[in-house]
Amino acid sequence: MRASRFFISTLKEAPSDAEIVSHKLMMRAGMIKRLGSGIYTYMPLGLRVIRKVEAIVREEMNKAGAIELLMPLVQPAELWQETGRWDKMGPELMRVKDRHGRDFAIQPTSEEVITDVVRSEIKSYRQLPLNFYHIQTKFRDERRPRFGLMRGREFTMKDAYSFDRDVAGMQVSYQAMFDAYVKIFTRFGLQFRAVAADNGAIGGTGSHEFHVIASTGEDALVYCPTSDYAANMEAAEALPLLVGRAAAAEALAKTATPGKTKCESVAEFLGLPLARTVKSIALTVEKESEGEVTKENWLLLLRGDHELNEVKVSKVAGLSNFRFASEAEILEAYGSVPGYLGPVATKQPVNVVADRTVANMADFVCGANEEGFHYTGVNWGRDLQEPVVADLRNVVEGDASPDGKGVLAIERGIEVGHVFQLGTAYSAAMNATYLDEKGQPAPLQMGCYGIGVTRILGAAIEQNFDDKGIVWPDAIAPFELVLCPMGYDRSELVKLETDRLYAELQAAGVDVIVDDRGLRPGAMFADWELVGVPHRVVIGERGLKEGNLEYQGRRDAEATAVPAAEMVSFITGKLGTPGK
Amino acid sequence: MRASRFFISTLKEAPSDAEIVSHKLMMRAGMIKRLGSGIYTYMPLGLRVIRKVEAIVREEMNKAGAIELLMPLVQPAELWQETGRWDKMGPELMRVKDRHGRDFAIQPTSEEVITDVVRSEIKSYRQLPLNFYHIQTKFRDERRPRFGLMRGREFTMKDAYSFDRDVAGMQVSYQAMFDAYVKIFTRFGLQFRAVAADNGAIGGTGSHEFHVIASTGEDALVYCPTSDYAANMEAAEALPLLVGRAAAAEALAKTATPGKTKCESVAEFLGLPLARTVKSIALTVEKESEGEVTKENWLLLLRGDHELNEVKVSKVAGLSNFRFASEAEILEAYGSVPGYLGPVATKQPVNVVADRTVANMADFVCGANEEGFHYTGVNWGRDLQEPVVADLRNVVEGDASPDGKGVLAIERGIEVGHVFQLGTAYSAAMNATYLDEKGQPAPLQMGCYGIGVTRILGAAIEQNFDDKGIVWPDAIAPFELVLCPMGYDRSELVKLETDRLYAELQAAGVDVIVDDRGLRPGAMFADWELVGVPHRVVIGERGLKEGNLEYQGRRDAEATAVPAAEMVSFITGKLGTPGK
Repeated sequence: MRASRFFISTLKEAPSDAEIVSHKLMMRAGMIKRLGSGIYTYMPLGLRVIRKVEAIVREEMNKAGAIELLMPLVQPAELWQETGRWDKMGPELMRVKDRHGRDFAIQPTSEEVITDVVRSEIKSYRQLPLNFYHIQTKFRDERRPRFGLMRGREFTMKDAYSFDRDVAGMQVSYQAMFDAYVKIFTRFGLQFRAVAADNGAIGGTGSHEFHVIASTGEDALVYCPTSDYAANMEAAEALPLLVGRAAAAEALAKTATPGKTKCESVAEFLGLPLARTVKSIALTVEKESEGEVTKENWLLLLRGDHELNEVKVSKVAGLSNFRFASEAEILEAYGSVPGYLGPVATKQPVNVVADRTVANMADFVCGANEEGFHYTGVNWGRDLQEPVVADLRNVVEGDASPDGKGVLAIERGIEVGHVFQLGTAYSAAMNATYLDEKGQPAPLQMGCYGIGVTRILGAAIEQNFDDKGIVWPDAIAPFELVLCPMGYDRSELVKLETDRLYAELQAAGVDVIVDDRGLRPGAMFADWELVGVPHRVVIGERGLKEGNLEYQGRRDAEATAVPAAEMVSFITGKLGTPGK
Repeated sequence: MRASRFFISTLKEAPSDAEIVSHKLMMRAGMIKRLGSGIYTYMPLGLRVIRKVEAIVREEMNKAGAIELLMPLVQPAELWQETGRWDKMGPELMRVKDRHGRDFAIQPTSEEVITDVVRSEIKSYRQLPLNFYHIQTKFRDERRPRFGLMRGREFTMKDAYSFDRDVAGMQVSYQAMFDAYVKIFTRFGLQFRAVAADNGAIGGTGSHEFHVIASTGEDALVYCPTSDYAANMEAAEALPLLVGRAAAAEALAKTATPGKTKCESVAEFLGLPLARTVKSIALTVEKESEGEVTKENWLLLLRGDHELNEVKVSKVAGLSNFRFASEAEILEAYGSVPGYLGPVATKQPVNVVADRTVANMADFVCGANEEGFHYTGVNWGRDLQEPVVADLRNVVEGDASPDGKGVLAIERGIEVGHVFQLGTAYSAAMNATYLDEKGQPAPLQMGCYGIGVTRILGAAIEQNFDDKGIVWPDAIAPFELVLCPMGYDRSELVKLETDRLYAELQAAGVDVIVDDRGLRPGAMFADWELVGVPHRVVIGERGLKEGNLEYQGRRDAEATAVPAAEMVSFITGKLGTPGK
C-alpha cells in the first residue's frame, strides 16, 4: 500500500468525550469515527485491524470444525417470543416494526435463529455433532454507551453454536472451542487469561470467559500463579480464612458507638482490628403465594474487611431474587436505622446467613439493632443460633486457592470472549430435537461461543500503548511495517531504494505501507507511532551511502542500522510471529 | 474441504412460495434458508459464493484506487433529514427508535453517512479525489419481497462514493468505476451488459446500469449489435419512424366505430393497418399558485402499435409531476368516455404532445371525443394545430439506433450494478465543501457506485442452470471441483487415490471438496449437479486399474477418461479462468 493512495487522518487531540486510552488513541489515529452514541464508522485503518482479527478467528474456527454461515440482522419477534427473550431482554434489545406492523429484533446474538435453522435441518443423531458460526454486526441498545469500541451499541461479534446428542458430546464440542480460543488469542499476540465464569441466569453447566489482561480492565480476574486455577470475581470461590472457631473468651456487651455506622470507624473507635468486626447486610425477599405477597427478612454477615459478592448471594437457597432492604423495611424488621444492624435480638424474625469466615469467628463485634450501639464479644451458639453458612464474599489477594495449590492473585482484564455450555435451555424452549438411535426424539445439547471482534481492538490497545500512541501486535496491526523514505520526492537514490525494498517486501508477503506523502520526518514518525505500526524502516541518503537502512521496532528506544541488502530477511525474521 | 465436515442439505422439491428458478434452485441446493419475508440465512454453501463475489469486488475496487471502510447499519435520522430522504423515502426506509426515543434508519444505502464523514475530514483540494466503499448489509422494507435473493429485504451491497473537485474530476472517477465494474463482471464469468440509464429523481449528469443477461430478467435492455450503443428501456431514445410527413390525401371524416375502444380493434374494424392509428392518453397536471390548485389537461399521442415510456413523459416541460386523468376529468375535458379521445375538437383546452413518429404521420385515425366515433383522415396543420413534439415511446426491436450505426435489438437483464454521477445533490444539501486553490469553499462533486452482492447469486443462476440444477461459473462457484470417490469407505485403492489427489489439488490452489459422505453414486451426483459445482472427478476402482479417472464438466454430456497422473494439471488447465 502507498500512503498517498490510502486514507490517513490523525489528530493531535482526542475529542473530549473519549474517557479511556484506547478510545482516545483510536480517535486520534483515525481508526474510528463517531456517528452517534455508541455507533462508529470503522475508518480504513481500523477496518484493516478488524479484517485481520476476523481472518484469524475464521481460520481457527474452521480448523476446529465449525462451519460458517450468515444469519440475518433483522429477526422476527416470534422466535424471540418462543424462548421468552423478547420480554426478558428489556430495552437493550433493539426492536423495530416493519411496514406491516410486524415486530422484529435487531440481533444482539442469534441463539433463536440458529436453533430454528437446526431444528428444521437436523433429523437424526447421524447428523451430529454440528457447530455453526457467523461473524456479523450486532446491536445492543446499551443504557450508557461509552469507551469507544469497548461498550458500543453497534459492534461485530463472532458467535458460534454447537449441537450435540448428549452432555458428554457437548463437553467435547465445548473443549474444542476452548482450545480454538486459546489458539486465536495466542495468535493475536495478546496476553490473555481464560477464567471460569458463572453461568448466570441461563443456567447450563459451565462457562469460561477469555480476558485480555489490562490494568484498565473493568473485570477482576482471580488466578493462582502456582496452579491452573482461574475464575472471574463472580465465580471465584472464597474459602474460610479462619479454619477453626476459637472458644469464646469475652462476654457479650452492648457498647456505645455513637455515630459509628461503618465497620472501619467502629473498629477504630473500639481500638480493635477490622477483622474482629462483622457487617450486616439486610435483604428482602418477596414471595407470592395465592395472589398474596409476603416479605421475608434476611441478614447477611460479612467480616468487616470483606466485600459482598452478589452473584454468590443469588445462589443461596431462597435468595434467587433478593433485593436490598429499604430503610423502612430495616426499621420494621430490626427496630434500628441502618449502620447498627446485627443478628442478635432482631425485632422481627430474620434468616441469618453468615459468610464462611464469619461462621468461624469468635468474640466479634456487630450492630446491636439500636442506634449508637454495637455488641462486642459476640459468639455463635452462646449469644445467637448457629447460622446458615455460605460463601458470600469476593476473594482477595492472598486467599487460599480453592484447588489447594497456592494462594490467589488478582489482575484486571477486559472480556473479549465467552464460551458457554447451554445444555437444553434453548432447544427445550424451541422444541429442537433429533431422533436418537432408537428413533426417539431427544433435545439437542447446545453450547454457544462468542468473540467480540471489534472489542478486541480496544482491548489490544488498553494492553499495548505508550505516550506516543498505539503499539499493535504484529498479527493484528493495520500494517506490519512502514517504510519512511527521507525525501522520496527529492532524492532519486532514496526513491529507487524505497521502491526496490517495497517490491521485495511485498513479494515476501510482508504487509507494508510506504509513506510517500512527502511529510517531514517528525510528522511522519509521529503519525506512524500514533497509528501503532509495529515495525519501521527509514530509508535515508546518508545511510544508503554506507549501504545501510535504519530499522526501529515500535517499542525500541533506538534505531538499528541494517545493511540494505539484508533488510528483507531481517524483517521476515522479525515477523516470525507465533502461530503464523 | 471434506463433505463429511461441511453442511450439505439438498431438497427434492422447492417450497411452494419459490416462484422463479434461481429462488427454487437456491432453496433446493440448501444455499439459503428463509427466516421471514425477504429475509434469508445464507447457509454454508451460499455464503461461500457470497465470499467469492465479495473478494472479486474488493480486489477490483482496491485496484481502482477505492478505499474500504465500514459504515454503520443503524444511522441517526438527523443525517437523513438533512438531505430530505427521511421524508422522501417512505416505508421502504426501515425506521427504528432507540431506548431514548431517538430516530434511526437501518441503512438502505450510505450517501448521508459518507458525506458526513467526508465533510468533516476533507479540508483542501489537495486531499482529493477520494473514493470510499464498503460491503455491508442493507435493509429495504420492500412492499412485496419475492424471488428469493432477487428482491429481498435484507441483502448485501457494495456501495462506493467518490468525491472530486469538479465535474471533470468526477467523470474521471466515474469512468474508473465503470471500468472496474467491467472487470468485476468479466471475472464473475457472467454475460453482462452495461446500459445507459436515466438519472431519475436525483438528477446528476449520467448513470449506467450493469445487467446480467437472462431471459427471465425484469428489465428490457436496448442495444445496437453493430455499435456501442446500449441503454435501458427508460433511457433508450426512439427516433421518428417516419422521416418526413406525407401530404394529406384523405378528407377528415367522423366514422362510427361502435364499441371499438382500442387501436387494434379500430384498425381491424376499419380495415386499416395499426400503424395508421393514433392512441390518445389523457394526463392531468395539478399546479398550485397562491394556495389555489388548478388543473391542466394534457393529451399524449402515440402511434397505435407503440408503448408509452413514462420516464420520457416526465421529462417533457410541464409534465414533471403528471398523473393519468381520472374518468371524471376525461369526461369534463373531452366530453367523451375513454376509448374515443383525440386531439381534434376537445371540450376544454388541452396541451397536445405528439410522439416523434405521430408528428410525421398523415391521414391518421384518432378518437372523435364522442362515444362510438373516430376521425379518419386526420392531418396536422389542416385539421388541428401542429403539436409539441417529444420522444414519448419505448423503442422496439428494429428501430434505428440513435447513434446512426445500425438497428436496435432488445434483450432481458437483471440489474446487479449501478454507477451514478451524483454531482452536488448530496454535498449541497449537507454543506460538504472543500477549499479550492484560492481558499474558497466549493461543493464536492460526488459519484455513487453500487453492486448487489447477494443479488449476483440469483442473477448468475437465472443465467446458468439446466434441468439438473445450478451451473456456477468457476470464479463464484461454492467449490471449483468435487471429487466423487466410488466406495471411499470400502476400497483402499479408491481412498488412497482420492486422498492423494485431494492433497495435490489443494496444494495447487484448487478449491476442492471431497464427497466422503458414503452416498450412492446417483444421489452423490444429483447433489453436486443441483449445487452446481462446475467440475467433477470420479475416482473408481475400475478406471484406476487402467490408471484413469473420470472428468466431467457440469455442462458436459459425457465423462472423459483422464490418466490419474495428469489430473491435477488437467484441472488447473480447465480452471484458467479469465482475469484469475
